[in-house]
Amino acid sequence: MKKSHLASTFALAVVLTGTAFAAGHIDEDVAKAMEARQSHMTLYSFNLGTLGGMAQEKIPYDAQAAATAAADLAALANISQTGYWIEGSDSSVEGSRAKPEIWTDAAGFAAKRQELATASTALAAAAGDGLDALKAAFGPVGGTCGSCHRGYRVSDN
Amino acid sequence: MKKSHLASTFALAVVLTGTAFAAGHIDEDVAKAMEARQSHMTLYSFNLGTLGGMAQEKIPYDAQAAATAAADLAALANISQTGYWIEGSDSSVEGSRAKPEIWTDAAGFAAKRQELATASTALAAAAGDGLDALKAAFGPVGGTCGSCHRGYRVSDN
Repeated sequence: MKKSHLASTFALAVVLTGTAFAAGHIDEDVAKAMEARQSHMTLYSFNLGTLGGMAQEKIPYDAQAAATAAADLAALANISQTGYWIEGSDSSVEGSRAKPEIWTDAAGFAAKRQELATASTALAAAAGDGLDALKAAFGPVGGTCGSCHRGYRVSDN
Repeated sequence: MKKSHLASTFALAVVLTGTAFAAGHIDEDVAKAMEARQSHMTLYSFNLGTLGGMAQEKIPYDAQAAATAAADLAALANISQTGYWIEGSDSSVEGSRAKPEIWTDAAGFAAKRQELATASTALAAAAGDGLDALKAAFGPVGGTCGSCHRGYRVSDN
């Protein structure tokens, strides 16, 4: 019993030490990763505000402004996001709305990011060609946003 | 006197109404613009952390990671920033460190942004070619950051 007790105590100490070290190490990386990906989403939103406002005719269509916002959106959507989606940064962490499916279905998540890159690249090619062209190309972009959020982002309801 | 007084009162009312409307309108735009440009800087910093860590040999050189971070940095540096630097978003606004020179010397500020785009595009071409190539191309990038901050960002000292 005594030997077993010692062994258990030792095992517990290893676990606790390991957890404390891992948590201390991961927290900083998690914070940076969350800050980066949320900043990235803010920049999507900034450009989508211009493009969506025009598509919904809430702000006047301007070919140059539309083309610029769509080019910026496409550049952002084609950025690698390497380092954004690190283990331990799911919605169990305060401030994160990342569903575990981002890691358990990594291929599906990567496919959604690729859909946005493809749709926003198409939008960049069309956005300066008139309001109808903008509207037609904006739909798929909005669709990929919603689809990815439904599958991989925790609802804030 | 009475006519003059009425005229002054009318002028003051116009100014106040104009200011109130402008402030109410601009505040939202200013908040969005500041959020966007600060998010953009966060993403610079995220990639510079990887690249600078390798250049300073604080983290091991990894050709693929270096090339990816540099490509992402270059993509970010080549984004238009249209809408980020709107009037009324200088350091007189809480949370802003933007010097008035951004607007009074717009050409100089644009030149600094172009320097970063050029230097980070060169870094993207070199970063995967070994640690020495990374170090050589990283210097000018760091130089443009510091130079722009000295000229156009209020010190936080």
